Amino acid sequence: MTDIFEKSKRTHYSNEIGPELAGETVKITGWVHEIRDLGGIVFVLIRDKNGITQLTAPSKKLSEEMMADVRAARKETIITVTGTVQESAKAPNGVEIIPSNIDVINVSKLPLPLDPTEKVDAEMDTRLDARFMDIRKHDVSAIFKIKNEILHTARNYFYDHDFTEINTPKLVASATEGGTELFPITYFEKEAFLGQSPQLYKQMMMATGLDNVFEIGQIFRAEEHDTLRHLNEALSMDAEMSFRSHEDVMDLLEDLIKNILSNVESNCQSELEDLGHELDIPKEAFPKVTYDEVVDIVNSQDVEMEYGEDLNRAAEKVLGDTMGSYYFITEWPSAIKPFYVMPLCDDPEKSTAFDLMYRDLELSSGSQRIHCYDLLLDQFEKKDLNPDSFT
Amino acid sequence: MTDIFEKSKRTHYSNEIGPELAGETVKITGWVHEIRDLGGIVFVLIRDKNGITQLTAPSKKLSEEMMADVRAARKETIITVTGTVQESAKAPNGVEIIPSNIDVINVSKLPLPLDPTEKVDAEMDTRLDARFMDIRKHDVSAIFKIKNEILHTARNYFYDHDFTEINTPKLVASATEGGTELFPITYFEKEAFLGQSPQLYKQMMMATGLDNVFEIGQIFRAEEHDTLRHLNEALSMDAEMSFRSHEDVMDLLEDLIKNILSNVESNCQSELEDLGHELDIPKEAFPKVTYDEVVDIVNSQDVEMEYGEDLNRAAEKVLGDTMGSYYFITEWPSAIKPFYVMPLCDDPEKSTAFDLMYRDLELSSGSQRIHCYDLLLDQFEKKDLNPDSFT
Repeated sequence: MTDIFEKSKRTHYSNEIGPELAGETVKITGWVHEIRDLGGIVFVLIRDKNGITQLTAPSKKLSEEMMADVRAARKETIITVTGTVQESAKAPNGVEIIPSNIDVINVSKLPLPLDPTEKVDAEMDTRLDARFMDIRKHDVSAIFKIKNEILHTARNYFYDHDFTEINTPKLVASATEGGTELFPITYFEKEAFLGQSPQLYKQMMMATGLDNVFEIGQIFRAEEHDTLRHLNEALSMDAEMSFRSHEDVMDLLEDLIKNILSNVESNCQSELEDLGHELDIPKEAFPKVTYDEVVDIVNSQDVEMEYGEDLNRAAEKVLGDTMGSYYFITEWPSAIKPFYVMPLCDDPEKSTAFDLMYRDLELSSGSQRIHCYDLLLDQFEKKDLNPDSFT
Repeated sequence: MTDIFEKSKRTHYSNEIGPELAGETVKITGWVHEIRDLGGIVFVLIRDKNGITQLTAPSKKLSEEMMADVRAARKETIITVTGTVQESAKAPNGVEIIPSNIDVINVSKLPLPLDPTEKVDAEMDTRLDARFMDIRKHDVSAIFKIKNEILHTARNYFYDHDFTEINTPKLVASATEGGTELFPITYFEKEAFLGQSPQLYKQMMMATGLDNVFEIGQIFRAEEHDTLRHLNEALSMDAEMSFRSHEDVMDLLEDLIKNILSNVESNCQSELEDLGHELDIPKEAFPKVTYDEVVDIVNSQDVEMEYGEDLNRAAEKVLGDTMGSYYFITEWPSAIKPFYVMPLCDDPEKSTAFDLMYRDLELSSGSQRIHCYDLLLDQFEKKDLNPDSFT
């Protein structure tokens, strides 16, 4: 067993070792992915975060001791291999490593709960029970890496555009916004709730003079959904800008989405390959359809939708098929939008609210907020809300 | 009243307008901070996110209408001013703006709940009741801006060092780590809890092969503290690395802290000035004291501390006075550290656990984790924990 306090377990990740390193000594650490023992030669595939590298052990060239070490390798055992890089057309990345030293860091317990080589499919229950092994599969860890790229790009976008990052409370005294069920908590002797959204907090921050704020954080919704489209705990990206119109917000959102897509395409090529997914990156401006047009489109496709209704699943589906890719729905009726949404100046029955859609999926929504005290009071009344519960 | 959909409310923030812009036309938007009406001339200080700019209105040069607009300004009203920059030795930033247009965006309601010019001090209750106004004070918003710089630096540090950002669940089925009280939630028909720390999740991520992960997110602790040092909801920075020793982790932590301090010093000069605070940036390596040495230091200062005890407040205080600035406490007794902490190879009664301290304040703690199955089982037994509750 190797010294666990040893300074470094690798000189390279698998994806960094190619034919250009032929003849050099490298050290990699990873999980034994596959072993093929042909008698005179043993092949071991070693998997790490970024790829797979082949260890090749020809018995003629290696000591008996070394061969015994190689043969003792079993699937998912963690080993550190030091060795010489050699070109090999048949191996992953076009190279194999001829070992000069092998350290076993931890031995796996067989049988494995699931097979990370994916030759044997696992049921969802098995995958969740052995989630730590499920994530070892590159097509599963690809999702984590792409999510990381999305978060990285989004945060830097906000930092670069002079937004201040805020962290709003997740423990809240009362439900104020409506629209969803909240999880109740026992907060010492009182009842409290888990926040459904930082919405009202970020809007209040605008009154502080910070101008632009954002938060990427968890939200909690106690809805008993049984769909693929709703979660009780989710990550939400929220941004708020002062002295801006809803058009400005749509511009920013579109630019942000395009930045994210472009960075994922540039920086997550191998992850997209692992997922077998090609990104749909729109070059043109996202089209905008008004809510009125949406009602017409949906009805023209033989799905019923009354004016003033939200989109149901059937409506979302036919609209998604018609619009394809990314688009905004604008000018929602004021009646079905929250109290803080600014009506349109020249037609107050319609509002500055918009949704950003990708096909039939709502990605984001926004609006200009009401900044006039009297208009806000009017809205409280129209929506049957008590202003006192917001103070 | 101006058109609220107008494209841009400002060309500059206050701190961007200096004598080098003399003669140019600028547009600023902000809150009326102060008004001084001398009859023939009116001075209005306009405060925005980044500073204060003086609007100067000499009645001889401006129309009666414009003078009426200026005189109608009241404290905390939001206005947009377009005008010509003119040098003025007495004004903030050495410039004043002679207005050519004034738009009132929103009129404040008097009397104000508190005075953002801070000529009148406010009680803490008043400040919290009118928190949106409290944050208008530059010394209060400075804290938000510095926090933003800290988060920005920390996240980029992790991104740059090949960490994957993760988001672990905050709704958890049971308390597994101990050491604190949890908030109970009603999760549909079941009881659940709010997460006290992503600790075990990030450790489990190491078994997935992602190697380095981090999370910056909210944690919840249901302790009835009445101190300035504990919060029931707080933001926690967590990182975890595979195939690394506790020495490596301390190196990373020290480097991260130095990066944060250096970026705050470079990018938050005016915020530090607003707070009247000078940063203590250590140039040397953070000193390390072992737990044994800590016990000696504390006892030598006439504060009692038994071997095997955690540091109480009195002990933290004398230790902080002795050590000053940043330092690590290393080699904590294994007995008072969590089950997953790796003992020292050559002295298993002591552990790889460390704390990072700033004077008498614990900033962070860490350790190498146990990666050997049998040793971990041993530890469960020693700590009277049931392994089944961790599966």
